[in-house]
Amino acid sequence: MTSKQGRALDLADSKILIAGAASLVGSHTADRLIDAGAKEVILLDNFAFGTPEAIAHLDGHPRVRLVKADLMRLPAVLAATEGVDGVLHLAAYMTLGFSQTPWEAIDVNLRGLQNMLEACRVNRIGKLLFASSNAVYGYGSGIRGALVEDGPFHTAGAPPAAILYGASKIMGEQLCRQAHQKHGLDYVALRYSTVYGERQHYRAANALYIMDTYDRVCRGEPPVMPGDGTESKHFVNVHDVARANLAAFVSSATDVAVNVSGPAPVTTGEIVRMVLDYCGSELEPVMQPDPPGTVRLTSGGAFHIPHERAGEVIGWQPEIGMKEGIARLLQWRESQGTR
Amino acid sequence: MTSKQGRALDLADSKILIAGAASLVGSHTADRLIDAGAKEVILLDNFAFGTPEAIAHLDGHPRVRLVKADLMRLPAVLAATEGVDGVLHLAAYMTLGFSQTPWEAIDVNLRGLQNMLEACRVNRIGKLLFASSNAVYGYGSGIRGALVEDGPFHTAGAPPAAILYGASKIMGEQLCRQAHQKHGLDYVALRYSTVYGERQHYRAANALYIMDTYDRVCRGEPPVMPGDGTESKHFVNVHDVARANLAAFVSSATDVAVNVSGPAPVTTGEIVRMVLDYCGSELEPVMQPDPPGTVRLTSGGAFHIPHERAGEVIGWQPEIGMKEGIARLLQWRESQGTR
Repeated sequence: MTSKQGRALDLADSKILIAGAASLVGSHTADRLIDAGAKEVILLDNFAFGTPEAIAHLDGHPRVRLVKADLMRLPAVLAATEGVDGVLHLAAYMTLGFSQTPWEAIDVNLRGLQNMLEACRVNRIGKLLFASSNAVYGYGSGIRGALVEDGPFHTAGAPPAAILYGASKIMGEQLCRQAHQKHGLDYVALRYSTVYGERQHYRAANALYIMDTYDRVCRGEPPVMPGDGTESKHFVNVHDVARANLAAFVSSATDVAVNVSGPAPVTTGEIVRMVLDYCGSELEPVMQPDPPGTVRLTSGGAFHIPHERAGEVIGWQPEIGMKEGIARLLQWRESQGTR
Repeated sequence: MTSKQGRALDLADSKILIAGAASLVGSHTADRLIDAGAKEVILLDNFAFGTPEAIAHLDGHPRVRLVKADLMRLPAVLAATEGVDGVLHLAAYMTLGFSQTPWEAIDVNLRGLQNMLEACRVNRIGKLLFASSNAVYGYGSGIRGALVEDGPFHTAGAPPAAILYGASKIMGEQLCRQAHQKHGLDYVALRYSTVYGERQHYRAANALYIMDTYDRVCRGEPPVMPGDGTESKHFVNVHDVARANLAAFVSSATDVAVNVSGPAPVTTGEIVRMVLDYCGSELEPVMQPDPPGTVRLTSGGAFHIPHERAGEVIGWQPEIGMKEGIARLLQWRESQGTR
């Protein structure tokens, strides 16, 4: 696929703002941007979900500035983005938020992004990366085979909050496209699959499964496998996600959406096995059959999320396999001590 | 399909509020509700798009009350819905609005609906009809064959405003589902296909085609057919839509989405022929090949929108074929004189 050509940032000469920075993806991307010599990295967060711990290691860094601000307040966003060259827009509610507080979730995922796009226009920011999601492909029985970037949004049988979250990401991508068409903003929508890694928070249900399994094994309890353990998951390690973000900033790709996924999908059974191996445990997993009428966010069927387009348009491919990624996550988890 | 059972309204004992009432669908549904003996019909509109002309014939009717209010102001919505038994929620921006004023469009289509759902909760309104759209199936090459209610949302190649509009309707349906699950609101999402009929406004691009063709023929100009005239369209007459709304109110169906479409799809070539026949004109249509890269909101392929589910769950089916519907529309158009 040949992509449109837009602005490519020279990171050593750029100020980058990360919205929703006090997070798994935000903090790792900040680390990489500093390593790449970015002139300034502005960490914007309202700490509604973000935690000071996620960015504590950057405290006092001469090229890092923390801005505590809320995306819902346009004047604050305008002020924070003055003189900025590129924006990584991560701030969003996930599915749980669309279930618990749908008003706020819609506000932040749509109006929050609109405010940022308006700030890009006003402050003449040339490039924005939008954190999209494989949720744009939806859920349920339609999710099988390769989920390529041109595919449709499946919703049959999925719960309202999941559909609302996925649709908010679809709309977010289109708001970026409109800003591109109307105001010349260059953007790349990065459709992350399930992100996991060090500094993992406890909000993302899918990634949480690795840590929950580990916590059970540490307590001497057998891991629990939903269904029969054959359910597919497609993770991506946060280090690979941070690399993808930098690749998108420095590439000239624009007006395009790309999948950002790990080398290959795994099953829940394989994850459990990797965690047990890491722990050197003899425990055997317990299968937990679904109650009748259960709807899963991923289907029971086999699917995978190809990342070939990301290779073609931003020159990125994932490097960290699940076994290595789980080991790094759990080493970090151990270093944190008991929660 | 068996649908969940919820509240069935006795219209002769009900106060019904129509949000976005000064409109094609709103005014015709109001007429039907009055005929059915409704205790009161409250016409709510902010007249941003609605016109006084559309409801002028109801002026002074003893069982009709006009409320000029904006859905974005929750106190006004709360006040207007006091003592109401059922709501028909039509108020929305269409694709053009998502192109011209996307901030307002998102506000009205999502926050406006949220305000109405909140008013239903506060004022213990038992039943809401949500005006959804066949836009929930999307656009482009994926649109072919039967667009059944469980189908996915296709977006590949469609313009941003169209995808935003369709996604806003998907989210609207899910907000209704959430209100049903959390607060017990009974609702039916009615996925109207392209509505046409007397009191046609000049905002809906697809339905407008009939009137534009007629206007050209009246001026002695040959009708213009986009492409080769084989493009499918699936209209539904506004009288049938009004009947569907009443059927949904009086049925006990809840938590369900149903297509509301005309007896059968037509091609643009057939529409042109029907208009020429109506006018008794000898003019021949001119084909207007698409410029390279044209993206249509409907595919060039053949599709149709089955309405069997509406038959099963609300006991409705369309009665007015295109030939009769076009004749009724154009007779009305003639009675209006020159624009």
